[in-house]
Parts: sequence; C-alpha cells; structure tokens
Amino acid sequence: MSGLFISFEGPEGAGKSTQIARLAARLASAGVVHRLTREPGGTPLGTRIRDILLDAELEIHPLPEFLLYSASRAQLVQDVIRPALQAGEVVICDRYADSSAAYQGAGRGLDPRLVANVTWEATGGLRPHITVLLDLDPEVGLKRAASRGQPDRLERADLGFHRRVRQGFLDLAAGEPERFLVLDAEDNEAQLEAAIWQAVGRTLAALGQPVNSG
Amino acid sequence: MSGLFISFEGPEGAGKSTQIARLAARLASAGVVHRLTREPGGTPLGTRIRDILLDAELEIHPLPEFLLYSASRAQLVQDVIRPALQAGEVVICDRYADSSAAYQGAGRGLDPRLVANVTWEATGGLRPHITVLLDLDPEVGLKRAASRGQPDRLERADLGFHRRVRQGFLDLAAGEPERFLVLDAEDNEAQLEAAIWQAVGRTLAALGQPVNSG
Repeated sequence: MSGLFISFEGPEGAGKSTQIARLAARLASAGVVHRLTREPGGTPLGTRIRDILLDAELEIHPLPEFLLYSASRAQLVQDVIRPALQAGEVVICDRYADSSAAYQGAGRGLDPRLVANVTWEATGGLRPHITVLLDLDPEVGLKRAASRGQPDRLERADLGFHRRVRQGFLDLAAGEPERFLVLDAEDNEAQLEAAIWQAVGRTLAALGQPVNSG
Repeated sequence: MSGLFISFEGPEGAGKSTQIARLAARLASAGVVHRLTREPGGTPLGTRIRDILLDAELEIHPLPEFLLYSASRAQLVQDVIRPALQAGEVVICDRYADSSAAYQGAGRGLDPRLVANVTWEATGGLRPHITVLLDLDPEVGLKRAASRGQPDRLERADLGFHRRVRQGFLDLAAGEPERFLVLDAEDNEAQLEAAIWQAVGRTLAALGQPVNSG
C-alpha cells in the first residue's frame, strides 16, 4: 500500500472534527489527494449501523455494541480504506479500532483479547500510520458535548466510564508511541493544527510524498 | 438452568415455521409454558439488525454479516433466552448459532475457528438441548422459497452456496448426534410433527417435566 492512513481518537468534545477539517484544508492546499471517513459509518451498511448505535433509546449490551462497531469497521476497511490506500491516497478516519479498545474494552470491561482478536479479523490487521489522540479531561469533554445538545448513548455513561476510556486511550498510546501523537485537546486550535501538520508532513516525506510543510 | 432450549435449523422453504407452530400447539395443549423467538431478531436491537440483514439492496461482506448475526444473538441470549430458561420455560428459537456455522462458515467460507470463537462469546457457550434440522435438497428449497415472493439476500445466492450450507448443517449434526434431530423436510407435516414431539417429550421427561406424549 502506498497511501497514508491517519486516524483521530479522543472523547466527544475534544475537537476531532475541527482538527480533521483543518488537516483536510492543509492537504487540499498542498494538492494531496485525501479522503475523509468515519466510524461507525462511511459505507451504506455502516450508516445503517451508525443509526442503531447512536439511538439513545435502544438498549444494547457491551458485546453486541462491540460487534456492531466491528461490522461497520470490517465493511469500511474493505470498501473504502484499503482501496483508497492502494490508490495512494491519504485517508483520514474519525475514530477507528482504538475507539473499540478504549470504549468497549477499557470502558465497558470486555475482554481485551476478544476485542483484539475480532478487531484483527475486522481490519485484516490494518493499522493507521498516525493516530492523533486528542486527550481531554472527561469532565471538560462532557461539558463541551452537553453544550451541543442531546447526549448520545456513550455520552450518557457515568464519569467513571469516561475516566476508564481516557486511561484506555493513554495506555494504547504508551504501548505504540511511534504510531500515536498525543496532544492536549485544551491547547489552542492553531497550535494543535500545527503539531498535526508537522507529524503528517514528516510521514508523507518519509513515504516519498514530500509536501510544503510551511 | 431448568428450562428446555430447542432450535430449528434448515434452509428457507424447509417448513421450520410450520413445525414450530405445530410444536407450540402441542406444548400449549400439554400446559407447558413456552416461548417462541427467532434469529436474527427477538429483541428491539435484533429487530433493527434483522431489517439490515434482510435488506436485499444492501451490500454486506461475509464478516460484517456474521458479526451482525452475532450481535443480534448476543442480545437475544442475554435478554430473552437465558431469563426464560432460568424461569423453567421451553424456548423455541427459529435459527440459532448453527445457522452462522452453516451459512457464514461453510457457505461464505469464513474461518470456522473465528465463527466458533465469536459464537462462544456471543452465547456464553449456551447450546440448545435439541436442534431440529429439517434437511432439504437446495433445489427444492429454493423453488419453495421462490414461490413465496421476493428472495432475500441469502436466497439469491447461487446453488453452490446452498449446497455448502446444507453440507455444513449435516456436518454439524454428525458431530453432535445427541443434540441434533435430523429429519427429511420432504416427509409429510404430520410425520415430522410426531417425530419432533416424541423427541421433545422424551427430553422433557428426562428433565423431570413429563408430559402426555400421545
């Protein structure tokens, strides 16, 4: 594969959408072909699964919740992410497998080996080159998310859950420091954008696609 | 658990619904508390997943298809089947885990170990006491199903697929002869009903709930 795969992780309210839009604008200015997608979603099947997962009225136990995310992920990898990477594109994914490890594994308490095994199957072992983790205190994140309207299923969970999720993300990052770029989501947006663009520019150069990183 | 768990398996057109209705009527006459359910479905989540799986317009790859069935199954076991069995009821399920082994494993070619591992997690290892397999030549089954209207996703698959599914079911039955009751779906309905009722009556007696098996 000759493309570049970048995922964004972190809690609701951390500013993922903002930073993804800023990165996409930088790539567009640099003339780099890129594609934005997200989990759950990104395919007709994924969109149907997303509707189920974000329906706050529906009771879903932790294991079926994880299996639904994995189903969406498997379809997305096969239909969107792998073909785009094979075509040499930059793929930016709003959440990917680390979210399952953090939310359903660390957060909901599913067996980490089960999560890792199903994720391996669903992704065929495909991992991002760069994972941007926008780390944020859960209390701040929940306040930001609440200010944007009705909380969804995950946002309604208790603070202990969100603390386990945060620690889950930080543990994943500690285990793969070469893949993760951990940033403080409370830094200002322009600083975050610059840090992300620096990492992406460096990796593109390493992959033989240097861009003007100014 | 003190209840009795019975699953019905076999292709579309084999007469599962008819035989389930006949068994339910027998149980009702004998005053046995019983519950009918089905896969995919049987819970609010399962019903939403069923809508996706039976949507013939939606492209779904084999692995996400299997994960969706497994998500529905995990929710059904936890919310419906286990509680009913713990209450001492007879549970009759129209399809269960053997369908995934036959359709997604043998039929679609997913790794049987993956199917077995995820199924173990989704069911917590819960297996039926009795699995009634209504075995039918795929050509006959497809003709019967076609005569009932629009074919769904699985019915549209090619004959080779349906032959692998049939062999998958027969292999499962050969591996667990004490659980499977394999019947020829082309036998007449009254004969089939009598054979099923005999097996159920015998198992209820063994579980200490004898019924009039006449």
